Amino acid sequence: MSKIAKLIGVGVGPGDPELITLKAMRALQEAEVIAHFAKAGNASNARAIVASHLRPGVAELELRYPLTTELPSTAPGYCSKMREFYHASALAVAAHLDAGRSVAVICEGDPLFYGSYMHLHVRLAERYPTDVIAGVTGMSGCWSAVGTPMAQGNDVFTVLPATLPESELERRLADAHSAVVMKLGRNLPKVRRALDRAGRLERAIYVERGTMANAVVMALTAKADEEAPYLAVVLVPGWEHRP
Amino acid sequence: MSKIAKLIGVGVGPGDPELITLKAMRALQEAEVIAHFAKAGNASNARAIVASHLRPGVAELELRYPLTTELPSTAPGYCSKMREFYHASALAVAAHLDAGRSVAVICEGDPLFYGSYMHLHVRLAERYPTDVIAGVTGMSGCWSAVGTPMAQGNDVFTVLPATLPESELERRLADAHSAVVMKLGRNLPKVRRALDRAGRLERAIYVERGTMANAVVMALTAKADEEAPYLAVVLVPGWEHRP
Repeated sequence: MSKIAKLIGVGVGPGDPELITLKAMRALQEAEVIAHFAKAGNASNARAIVASHLRPGVAELELRYPLTTELPSTAPGYCSKMREFYHASALAVAAHLDAGRSVAVICEGDPLFYGSYMHLHVRLAERYPTDVIAGVTGMSGCWSAVGTPMAQGNDVFTVLPATLPESELERRLADAHSAVVMKLGRNLPKVRRALDRAGRLERAIYVERGTMANAVVMALTAKADEEAPYLAVVLVPGWEHRP
Repeated sequence: MSKIAKLIGVGVGPGDPELITLKAMRALQEAEVIAHFAKAGNASNARAIVASHLRPGVAELELRYPLTTELPSTAPGYCSKMREFYHASALAVAAHLDAGRSVAVICEGDPLFYGSYMHLHVRLAERYPTDVIAGVTGMSGCWSAVGTPMAQGNDVFTVLPATLPESELERRLADAHSAVVMKLGRNLPKVRRALDRAGRLERAIYVERGTMANAVVMALTAKADEEAPYLAVVLVPGWEHRP
């Protein structure tokens, strides 16, 4: 056995278990350890997506965030607490790698695009052989489920976290042809106002759990309340001049 | 047989045939007709990606662009010529659908993200049952092959066509935390100058054929010449403040 243990960041796609790639399937079959991030007390979304694809009895490494509530990243102690957690997580993964066991870190969406896996990657990729398997992003899953063309030709496309200040959201929404606003949650009223002032509210589509059986899709103008889960998104389709 | 013929936009991913999803595989098995766009005289990239996954003898519909060279979209007659082509393509697909045959239109990357499929979708989706199967985008394939974290936390991420005016490229590059510049080709010298003035040149990574065996990846500052294929990209990774 001269097999070298590998760190593998595995994108498992946006939620629909069929939106996993052949390459990710192979990584799940070959890795000795499957690692996944989740909030303490919650099941991992990535693990739920691949549940039916896991080898029976495969070793799992649960990486549980120390914080159960959504804290602003400016809260005292937040950064050091998270840094300690990522450091400890990297050590736990490294222990498996040092023992010759390949570790597949499963990630919702795409590993290197707003994913927790990146915290392991920057700590380990220089020391261990590493592969990253691209995945279908959550946003692609959403606009495909809705069936709305998002960007074409010379469109400028932008991803905006809803946590940005309202005036910055407005400016950036007005400046892009096509946009996705992520991390809605309690930011929905602010996002709605910014879209309105940017002249983009009429085009905006609200999406919850885009690729799941219980998806919610509606024009944002038709959404009466200001309640939204953290992972809901708003799509602002571009491609205004269609030949 | 009460099966209803469907239009299916099938994302086949960025190039590596293993980066196709289970759902796309199923669509390829179930559809009666496989349609693909390509430049006249060229083989379809999407078809090359799925070649080993096609049912032997499945019917194929080739949609060949009327223009063999890269024309600016402002050239006289360009728009009407393309409009005629998309109209004729939609008619050809509709003829199969009307005859009860489902048509899978295979697309590199993700169908609704800068993809030719969108031209069929807007012409047919209201009249025929339609599914869109999200795919791994070319850009995800590129940054995964490179192994560079692209965007995290509150990063603003932007996709910019290299065809934009130089001053606009500079402004938008300086304004985003993370960016991808597409459609390099003859625009590379302009993109390089814009990155330099935006203070992003040192971070920029040049990628050709990101997920192929013959990929070219290097720091843009290490690329000596100004030759680039049309589909080459520049990645500008974000996530500057890593906890």
